[in-house]
Amino acid sequence: MTQLQKAKAGKITPQMVAVADSEGLDPEFVRREVANGRLVIPANSGRNNQTVYGVGLGLSTKVNANIGTSADFSSLEDELEKVKTAIETGAHAVMDLSTGGEIKTIRQAIRQSCSVMLGTVPIYQAGQEAVDRNGSVLSLTAENIFEAIENHCAEGVDFITVHCGITARAVQVLKDQGRITNITSRGGSIMAAWMAAHGQENPLYHQYDRLLNIAKRHDVTLSLGDALRPGCIADGTDRAQVEELLTLGALVDRARVAGVQVMVEGPGHLALDQIETNIKLQKSICKEAPFYVLGPLVTDIGVGYDHITSAIGGALAAWAGADFLCYVTPTEHLALPNNEDVRQGVLASLIAAHAADIAKGHLKARQRNTAMAKARASLDWEAMANLSLDPMHFRQVRHNRHTTATGACSMCGHLCTYKMTDEYLK
Amino acid sequence: MTQLQKAKAGKITPQMVAVADSEGLDPEFVRREVANGRLVIPANSGRNNQTVYGVGLGLSTKVNANIGTSADFSSLEDELEKVKTAIETGAHAVMDLSTGGEIKTIRQAIRQSCSVMLGTVPIYQAGQEAVDRNGSVLSLTAENIFEAIENHCAEGVDFITVHCGITARAVQVLKDQGRITNITSRGGSIMAAWMAAHGQENPLYHQYDRLLNIAKRHDVTLSLGDALRPGCIADGTDRAQVEELLTLGALVDRARVAGVQVMVEGPGHLALDQIETNIKLQKSICKEAPFYVLGPLVTDIGVGYDHITSAIGGALAAWAGADFLCYVTPTEHLALPNNEDVRQGVLASLIAAHAADIAKGHLKARQRNTAMAKARASLDWEAMANLSLDPMHFRQVRHNRHTTATGACSMCGHLCTYKMTDEYLK
Repeated sequence: MTQLQKAKAGKITPQMVAVADSEGLDPEFVRREVANGRLVIPANSGRNNQTVYGVGLGLSTKVNANIGTSADFSSLEDELEKVKTAIETGAHAVMDLSTGGEIKTIRQAIRQSCSVMLGTVPIYQAGQEAVDRNGSVLSLTAENIFEAIENHCAEGVDFITVHCGITARAVQVLKDQGRITNITSRGGSIMAAWMAAHGQENPLYHQYDRLLNIAKRHDVTLSLGDALRPGCIADGTDRAQVEELLTLGALVDRARVAGVQVMVEGPGHLALDQIETNIKLQKSICKEAPFYVLGPLVTDIGVGYDHITSAIGGALAAWAGADFLCYVTPTEHLALPNNEDVRQGVLASLIAAHAADIAKGHLKARQRNTAMAKARASLDWEAMANLSLDPMHFRQVRHNRHTTATGACSMCGHLCTYKMTDEYLK
Repeated sequence: MTQLQKAKAGKITPQMVAVADSEGLDPEFVRREVANGRLVIPANSGRNNQTVYGVGLGLSTKVNANIGTSADFSSLEDELEKVKTAIETGAHAVMDLSTGGEIKTIRQAIRQSCSVMLGTVPIYQAGQEAVDRNGSVLSLTAENIFEAIENHCAEGVDFITVHCGITARAVQVLKDQGRITNITSRGGSIMAAWMAAHGQENPLYHQYDRLLNIAKRHDVTLSLGDALRPGCIADGTDRAQVEELLTLGALVDRARVAGVQVMVEGPGHLALDQIETNIKLQKSICKEAPFYVLGPLVTDIGVGYDHITSAIGGALAAWAGADFLCYVTPTEHLALPNNEDVRQGVLASLIAAHAADIAKGHLKARQRNTAMAKARASLDWEAMANLSLDPMHFRQVRHNRHTTATGACSMCGHLCTYKMTDEYLK
């Protein structure tokens, strides 16, 4: 039985207890919301070595780091280092998006070294293998796709992105309407190309029950991909995107009935003034399913610094109700990220998540924040370092640019405001 | 006559024309809003070598970079390099906050090498000199303060931060109420310490007309400092902050009547859910005077990465109506920034400003953004580099991690979504 099925049956599982403990909540609250589908616990029933996290209503905002090889950079060692970095920096999930080298071997090694939630996008492997085999992604068969999904689930992946909502009708809406960036989702492009070449409906939509059965068997959480998410600000919140969202809403219902945990992915690129609307629309259409956002990036010109454009959008999205932030690294739109990019991406997303949790009133977030404020006002640098997101970096900067003014920093020295208020205003 | 006086007299100045041209607006619109005080043109009447910018209603959001020596790092050469970096990266203003070395010499050299708006905080120099002279900031006299202000204005500074709103009453409200971080503003601390030691009202408040006269003589724009801004999230939007804001509102009125251009500074540290409220409150209390925000930082624990926490808050603030963003560098709360920190700080603030301008519907911002989206969809990497905020960095990353798949990048290679849609979906 899945966590959802157990929750519906009134059973509080060890995973629900773990989530409740780490969030400072009552296990019965967690059970109830898993049963309602407003909270998911992505934890493959065949995998026991991970820290269990929940994603959804009432919980702190979670952060995912995408890693994985590409055709150009396919070193397993590099990717294992990224997994380590992502987790040490504070990511709650890692998605292996490998498309280069021995994809299966790489995934298995990543799974073994990954102590947090693990996600994948099986269509990437299926698509890359079709290119390797026949030089074209069009040589994919529906069976190849389901085979990849089955393998990922059986191996112990906790959640998978599946592009079930890009139907023939949605592609038609996209074509009728037109767009600057057409389909920016890699998985979405593969599905659309396949559908066009084969003249058939999206097999993940057409055979959705088959997908649900696989997911249920391993208690893999489905992350319904947004194949038609906007790839630029100008394409935000258009008919194609909303057409797909309506389908995703219907698929959420079917997953819940089948006892399969489900969350929904969201944009993408969105102007600041469209973020709250998108979150509220998704939450309403998808009956409050947990929302997993990729960004959103609030400008298109921040290339090289898209961890920042994404942190801005992610903070707003999480504050408006998104539950899970997929990081964006500084090299998004440019190149495969390296280890330092992964670290920067996780940090930026953690800042966004924490800022949103403060605004949403999460007690733990506020407590940590206020502890930092108190340490700062009393110039307790050791406490500040320990409360910061990156204590090692904190200590390095301070060491490299130290001050001669006891207790202060090298910006203000003896004009340190906290030294002055201490001396003159008590 | 000041720009404000000329605007009230119906005269369109070359500065108003320059602002209108660079923003794509009608000069009469600029004149009218300068007359209304909703737009300022910080341009010292004795200084001719700068690019003229406007700050306020209907204009693009501007970005300021704080530079300047400290007691611990007082190299003029380093600071001149920072000025160059800030301007090359895209800052519209530079504030020299020097408190170390030969402050006057440094300021004059900075002024000569600065082609954008130049701001200072005269109390820093006055305070540091008092410490140098007598070992205590308390040895300051009101005359010292006005002398520093007079000197800065006569030398050609375009705008100055003056902490006029921290009255005896405001300090009492602060004490009655209590706070975690008390006074986080350096200038505010100096004023409060001085008032307490001397048992006198804030001279910048008490002798505000004298200050107005100096500013008017040189057409220096007053930036009314927020001495009681919150220094942490938990202190946000409290009675002390709002008490000071009410005073600033009254001082805005008096400046306008005197023909002195004026803008108002704002927090600081604010949770996401308090930013819009703060901007609207300030705009209402201060009769839509241009708003210059320092951050706001949306968490306290992002030390080492506060350019990101500040970009999140700055984007929201500018979208809600703030006109001018003071950058925050990655080393805020830790050390004096170096040249690379300045660059990172300006970039983060430019991203926030641009994101806000898109949401506010600025045509130029949207055009550049959409041009980038089109370049991306057509895989025109040269156009993308040129449209990006940092073309050199863009090219470096791409060069260092190039792909073998023509036209794509090393993340997706042959699975590039734009290559796929081009090949299979036309």
